[in-house]
Amino acid sequence: MSPQEAYKELEKRQREVFLIQSCHAVLAWEERTYMPRGGAELRSEQRGYLAGLEHEKFTDPRIGELLSITEGSKLTQDPESVEAVNIREIRHRYDKDTKLPRELVEELTRTTSRAEGEWAAARQKSDFKAFQPWLEKVVRLLQQKAEAYGYEGEPYNALLDDYEPGATTDDIADVFAKLRGELVDLVARIKEAPKKPDVSIVEREYDIERQKLFNEMVAGAIGFDFGIGRLDITTHPFTSGFGPGDTRITTRYNPKHLNDALFGTMHEVGHALYEMGLEKKEHFGMPMGEAVSLGIHESQSRMWENQVGRSREFWVYFLPQAKRIFRESLDGVSLDDFYGAINYVTPSYIRVEADEATYNLHILLRFELERALISGDLKPADVPGEWNSRFKKYFGIEVDNDANGCLQDVHWSIGYLGYFPTYTLGNLYSAQFFTKATRDIPNLMRQFEEGNYRGLLDWLRKNIHSQGQRYRANKLCEKVTGEPLSHKPLMDYMSEKYGEIYGI
Amino acid sequence: MSPQEAYKELEKRQREVFLIQSCHAVLAWEERTYMPRGGAELRSEQRGYLAGLEHEKFTDPRIGELLSITEGSKLTQDPESVEAVNIREIRHRYDKDTKLPRELVEELTRTTSRAEGEWAAARQKSDFKAFQPWLEKVVRLLQQKAEAYGYEGEPYNALLDDYEPGATTDDIADVFAKLRGELVDLVARIKEAPKKPDVSIVEREYDIERQKLFNEMVAGAIGFDFGIGRLDITTHPFTSGFGPGDTRITTRYNPKHLNDALFGTMHEVGHALYEMGLEKKEHFGMPMGEAVSLGIHESQSRMWENQVGRSREFWVYFLPQAKRIFRESLDGVSLDDFYGAINYVTPSYIRVEADEATYNLHILLRFELERALISGDLKPADVPGEWNSRFKKYFGIEVDNDANGCLQDVHWSIGYLGYFPTYTLGNLYSAQFFTKATRDIPNLMRQFEEGNYRGLLDWLRKNIHSQGQRYRANKLCEKVTGEPLSHKPLMDYMSEKYGEIYGI
Repeated sequence: MSPQEAYKELEKRQREVFLIQSCHAVLAWEERTYMPRGGAELRSEQRGYLAGLEHEKFTDPRIGELLSITEGSKLTQDPESVEAVNIREIRHRYDKDTKLPRELVEELTRTTSRAEGEWAAARQKSDFKAFQPWLEKVVRLLQQKAEAYGYEGEPYNALLDDYEPGATTDDIADVFAKLRGELVDLVARIKEAPKKPDVSIVEREYDIERQKLFNEMVAGAIGFDFGIGRLDITTHPFTSGFGPGDTRITTRYNPKHLNDALFGTMHEVGHALYEMGLEKKEHFGMPMGEAVSLGIHESQSRMWENQVGRSREFWVYFLPQAKRIFRESLDGVSLDDFYGAINYVTPSYIRVEADEATYNLHILLRFELERALISGDLKPADVPGEWNSRFKKYFGIEVDNDANGCLQDVHWSIGYLGYFPTYTLGNLYSAQFFTKATRDIPNLMRQFEEGNYRGLLDWLRKNIHSQGQRYRANKLCEKVTGEPLSHKPLMDYMSEKYGEIYGI
Repeated sequence: MSPQEAYKELEKRQREVFLIQSCHAVLAWEERTYMPRGGAELRSEQRGYLAGLEHEKFTDPRIGELLSITEGSKLTQDPESVEAVNIREIRHRYDKDTKLPRELVEELTRTTSRAEGEWAAARQKSDFKAFQPWLEKVVRLLQQKAEAYGYEGEPYNALLDDYEPGATTDDIADVFAKLRGELVDLVARIKEAPKKPDVSIVEREYDIERQKLFNEMVAGAIGFDFGIGRLDITTHPFTSGFGPGDTRITTRYNPKHLNDALFGTMHEVGHALYEMGLEKKEHFGMPMGEAVSLGIHESQSRMWENQVGRSREFWVYFLPQAKRIFRESLDGVSLDDFYGAINYVTPSYIRVEADEATYNLHILLRFELERALISGDLKPADVPGEWNSRFKKYFGIEVDNDANGCLQDVHWSIGYLGYFPTYTLGNLYSAQFFTKATRDIPNLMRQFEEGNYRGLLDWLRKNIHSQGQRYRANKLCEKVTGEPLSHKPLMDYMSEKYGEIYGI
């Protein structure tokens, strides 16, 4: 069999796996949007079946044989060619998936599915002791998972790679440490600032039907195409790209807070624009038509949410429109006041409610703890103490109870260690990409004032979306910005913005 | 391998096939309710994949081996036992599915998918000649399909069996002919009746939001459980039972006609109550947890739509409620007037808009023509002439053009010959079952006046729903009513009802 023939068959098999995944994605989306509660058991059977089928098809030894025939052939000579990229990434996942013993996968599924329930109950009562044995089990199983995968350096690398392929803990930790130093300082100065925006402007009455209309207007204006997508309502907003021509986002509405749905929607639109910009038709079901990593995905959502949506220029265009829709609540509100209100910063306990500035401190804290948990340097029993002392140092406030502290997030209970850092990676990449975009498109911010977001979107399509998985995240960053990942663009952006708003 | 072991494996394989079907059902439902138009191509890939996978799993020769081991064993000694029924019905479908040559299946899929588009275009221009070559192709392929299946008597039997397993054309034709004679006479007498209800009552303004509320009230009252189901909006209403705990129905709203959504919803609720009443959990994925046939399914929808929803007693309870919701349009309307309006009869061209009395004439006409098409007695070229002359005889009016005549339905273009008779079988079974129910539950109609529909539902659950596929349709009818299928109960019911309303 020639390498070309092997590649053809590999493509065919990979596309079959993709079709199974995309059916699964529709069922998962439907479960969270429209499924009646009585359908839960059947849905779990359906999804379990599809997950098993996907695993069976993707770990078929035939895939390994086909990969071996193509590797080292002409197809992989240029490592950036479509074929070479697809072969490289399929190999990467195939090796990981075939390395996990079946018993470990099943044990992890069983344990995390129970641990999630135990976590929810423990958080309810703010009782860490009740959750501790489950955290111990999850950590132990993930350590085994890391060993099964294999790794260079520390075991956390193996877990991180599931979410951010190719990233190393050392590299991340270095950038994160620099960010933390400057960020703790910035947040402290904001806390002491003489000038404070009036956040109550966005906490007035905002009729949900009118919010829906406004959100659809904003989503459409920045490029979300409702002909190939939908916007629905769920408790936990998310984006799901089923494949070419079908990308769904969700949001949630708070009638007493304009920010929640608005910036939540812009965030998900950012994810969706990436999904819509990937060349999924040309590279149907193949890595070249897929997102690079969670960090890069998050960079797209954060950019539209923050660099665009929380910019003054964006509201030059949209505040007058918002005022016509929310007449009473925005009556007499100036651009400066509105801009201040949507950029209000205050240290708080809960990550998902955090503002743009303090958000990353929440992530850095979690990253440091989970890295130490996996290496064994931190015992699960010591998590609350360690959490609370770091929280005091970074945020300047005392955690009042574990429900507002180390028990607040679902991630650890479901075994998602290695996932948290991708949130801050997203913010870092977002600022670094955006800084480059403002250089490449000199009048970019001016375009925002005129309601024109096509320039930025085209830039993202060309430099990031259409690249698929050609480069790993760090390499993509260097290719696009000419520099490795750094904390500077994000800190520069925040220092300038908050300097002006808070007069610091 | 013992018959018991073989049965266990058969069950496992059948459940796998069922899970694939149920995933497919979710994707099909979502396509018609929420999918953005851009998702059509991907969805067709997904559905094609699942259909192929289902076929591959179900026609695996291993299924045939397992069936052979169980057949003739103790498991099938009592032909009405759970195991015997499951084995019988799986065998029935296995034999059919394995008999079709792959090329024929593919040729049929290709042809009907093009023929549907050609039909739509031809109907638009009322141009039968443009559709004729496609009808010829479809009929020829279906004749080949019938030959591949094999049949006793005439080839139409083989096609009918896909929708109404075990039914024979001769039996149906006999009952239908008797029905036609009496029905043509009844419709003619109604046309000449001195007394006519005022149909304009239901053609006033009916606010869609209020219709939604009223429909949900009615659906809930007659037993639709929103905890295990949903009611959505689609152009063509349908019911989809995904499996235990999840049954979906849809409807469509017309702001100028109360009947459309109201009786459409009750119709789909009837289907849904059957789906919800089947013992799908106990017999997960097995024939004993599935509906008998399309005819029996339709008997459930028609019963709730007509025998219940179009009864005077139903409106004793619901008209006062409707009046509070549709205050202006129903102001001063008496029970008699309302009852007359929802039971208005008039010959018309379009089947899907037909009233309860003339509806079956539309079906009988189609059954006669498609039976003759398959036997070869009728050439596709002669369909318009034959259609129009029969239409004149049965309805007493001339067809003005083919769009209002033989081009109106999608069925033939997509190869659904053998499907139409199940609509009238549904009406016949419905009346026969209901007549028996009124004997078994002496104060049944009185219960309706009090808003109590539990008595009827319990009777249906016990006698029909919980039986799954234990009996074929004709046998079920005899078991439940003590009589073979007859046109009499339906004619008696209609003669009495229209006799009163029209004074004939």
